[in-house]
Parts: sequence; structure tokens; C-alpha cells
Amino acid sequence: MTVYLVGAGPGDPGLITAKGLDLVRSCDALVYDVLVAPELVEEAPEDALRVGRAGIGQGELNELLVALGRQGLDVVRLKGGDPFVFGRGGEEALALAEAGVPFEVVPGVSAFSAVPASAGIPITHRGVSAQVTLVSGHSASGDELDYAQLADTPGTLVVFMGLAQLPALAERLIAAGKDGRTPAAVVSRGTHPDGRWVAAELHEIAAVAAGLRSPALLVVGDVVALRTRVQSPGAAGEHAVSAARA
Amino acid sequence: MTVYLVGAGPGDPGLITAKGLDLVRSCDALVYDVLVAPELVEEAPEDALRVGRAGIGQGELNELLVALGRQGLDVVRLKGGDPFVFGRGGEEALALAEAGVPFEVVPGVSAFSAVPASAGIPITHRGVSAQVTLVSGHSASGDELDYAQLADTPGTLVVFMGLAQLPALAERLIAAGKDGRTPAAVVSRGTHPDGRWVAAELHEIAAVAAGLRSPALLVVGDVVALRTRVQSPGAAGEHAVSAARA
Repeated sequence: MTVYLVGAGPGDPGLITAKGLDLVRSCDALVYDVLVAPELVEEAPEDALRVGRAGIGQGELNELLVALGRQGLDVVRLKGGDPFVFGRGGEEALALAEAGVPFEVVPGVSAFSAVPASAGIPITHRGVSAQVTLVSGHSASGDELDYAQLADTPGTLVVFMGLAQLPALAERLIAAGKDGRTPAAVVSRGTHPDGRWVAAELHEIAAVAAGLRSPALLVVGDVVALRTRVQSPGAAGEHAVSAARA
Repeated sequence: MTVYLVGAGPGDPGLITAKGLDLVRSCDALVYDVLVAPELVEEAPEDALRVGRAGIGQGELNELLVALGRQGLDVVRLKGGDPFVFGRGGEEALALAEAGVPFEVVPGVSAFSAVPASAGIPITHRGVSAQVTLVSGHSASGDELDYAQLADTPGTLVVFMGLAQLPALAERLIAAGKDGRTPAAVVSRGTHPDGRWVAAELHEIAAVAAGLRSPALLVVGDVVALRTRVQSPGAAGEHAVSAARA
């Protein structure tokens, strides 16, 4: 009887870890996020209890995990990306620890590097970027971003966000002193077959990205300019349609 | 004939992706890093060419990947962690693109979250840290860190490093204005069975971590203080021996 907090990866069902997939295939109960690939949910045993997370608040969800764990079940809590990268896995781990329910964290591939990679963007590159800053642009995070500090940060900035937040984000970064000509990209549904990305200078990225779908990742920094060179021959169009103007 | 740049994950062989493992199992040639788990190397077909990377410089390695790709082989270049997170995967991708050799990046679980998780530390946590900054403390990166900027950065700081760099890193962060009482942890060989971690305030973390083995990750920030609460019942000692004084 253990509750496994498992990262499902960034979207492509092949990007779950081997260990995570084994746990899904042998669990008694599967509690999964809306964004988790349906192919992974189908990997659970036929007689396993399956609970989609949609409509369940965080407090209620924590209670559900504790209750299932106390029944002596092997429970997989399958979360998009990595449980500890803006995934609120820490809150679930705390609730289980406080209730005395054994649990284990099984990390996953986070979107922060995999999603830019799907657009040919390496988030670090020798001589271009030796630092990466990750923030959440979802207002639901409850924490206000320090735009002045972010505008002054060297290297690559990666923002987890909904597309609705993009215009204000780009505007406030520029107002705080970030150069509006900095290369930027938005990758929508990266690693999914219907993933799309666009690139432009920061001052026009919101206009260029209009019409893409959430969830999306904003990447700001000179590594974005590498994408045209880091392109596999023959791969054009596989992941991407770009209205690139950067 | 494709060269796959595959992330092997942070150490535990179970943390490779399902897709990455399938590619290893069907490749014609496997070129692997020293830090990759031997269990994964053994997954390659018996008749596959296997090349350990030890002693091969980056330029020579790029040429090897191009040459193998041009022979029409399916090549897996298996790298620790994620290829694009301080992994120099971008340089390999560029070399392949410039040579006209088809390639694909298969992301991996990066150490930056998985290794702190192995010590019970969530790198983000609502109300505690909504920002993560990743830097490489290896002098080999060729880029000098901006300590004044890092000392002023909110949220969690994660430094990829060798343990030899730790005393100077901690000293320079404090000299640049970082509070010496900030909670810090060093996780050595995280997710490996012989992984160890220690925690202390930043000003004494180097002394407390003396004797641990490389590679290691330094985590600085208030999330480190959550580790005593995010502990699975009965899991004590599984990953960890801590001389925690924080």
C-alpha cells in the first residue's frame, strides 16, 4: 500500500518513465490529471479504479489520496510533467506524510525543456545561455512575479502559462526593462501531435501567438535564435508550423 | 537512419522514458556517457556497436555521430539527464543538422527536480517558491556566473556542480549578499541506490557536505526546509543519511 506521485511527462505518452509506466500497469487505483494522455490512462489494469481529476479541488484531492492509501491500495497519482515542477506534488506529499500514508515520488520529464526541444530550441547552449529561470505565469499560482528582477536575469526565461496571460506578461517584462527585440517563442501543446509553435521578437510575440491553444510555454532568450539551425533535415513540418518573424 | 539524442534520466535506470528505452533496445549503435546506468547499456541488442564516451572530446564525438548516421545506422546517443539541460545536446544537434544527418531529440528526466525530490525536497511549492533558477557551477561551462544577480533572485536556486566547486560557490553567493542562514542541501548521486544528501544553512553547507561524492546538486532556498515534513512514513534511511543541521 503506497501512493505513487508519478510524472506523466509533457504530453507524448512515450515520454512517461519506464518505472512510471510499470506502476500504472499494476496499480489498484489511478487518479489522473485532465492533461494526461488518454493512452496512459488505458494502460491501467481493467479492474483498476480510475478517477479523473477534473472538478476536484486540491483539498478534496488530497483527502481522496489519503483515503485510497488507507484502504491498503497501490495508488498511482498521475500528474502532467513532473510532480514537483509547478505541479503541487509537494502539497499532496505533505498531506500523505501528515496522514501517515506511505508514498513515493516518481519524477517525470518536465515540459520546461522537452517542449522547447520539440520546436528545436535547446534551453541551454554553451556560449549562449548558461542559466535557466522557470516561473509560472498562471495567476492561480498565488504568487506575484518580480518583473524587474526577471527582466534583469541573464540566460533563458521559461514561463508556464495559459495563452490568456501572454500579452500582459510580454508587456510587463518590456516595461520592466527587458529588450523588446529579445528572441521569443511560444510553444503550444508541445510534444503532442497537434503541437504548434511560433517565434518572434518579444514585443510582437503576443500578436504572433494569437490563435494558438493552451497549455503553452513562453521561451525568452537568445537560444530561440538557434532553432533555425537546430532543425533535423526532413523534419520540417513534423512538429511545427511557424509564423516565425524573429 | 536517424541519430536519436536520448536523455537517460538522472541515474536510476527506471527513470529513462518508455520511448528512450524502446530506441535503445532496437538501435544499431549506442554511444553513451560515463554516468549512464550500466543496466541501460545492457539493454542494447547484443550485436549493436557500443561506444563509451570516456576520453572522447566534444568535437570528435560530434564527428563520430555524423559518421555513424551517414552509414545509415539507427544511432542512440544516450546522455545523462536531459540532452538540452547543461547536456551540450544542442552542439550535437547542430553538428548533425549542418552535416545533413536526420536526428531527433528524445527528452529525459532532468536531475534538477528529480535529485532534490529524492531527498524529499519539492523545488517549487505554493507560498514558498514560485521560481526556480538553474545554473551550472562546473568551471568547464566556460561561462562566469553573475553572483550579484543570483544572490538577489527569489525562489529556489539549483546548481549543477562537482563537489570541488561547492566551498567557493557558497562563499561567493554570501559575499554577493545572499543570507548565509538560507536553508541549503547537497544531494550526491541522487536517485542512485548509494545516493546521499545533507542539509545545513548556506554558510556551513560546504563543511557539512565534505566527503560526499560527485556528481552533486546544490539546492538553496526555503523549499529545503520542507524536507523534514515531506518524508514518507517508513522511508527514513532509504535514500538518505543526513547530518542535517539546518
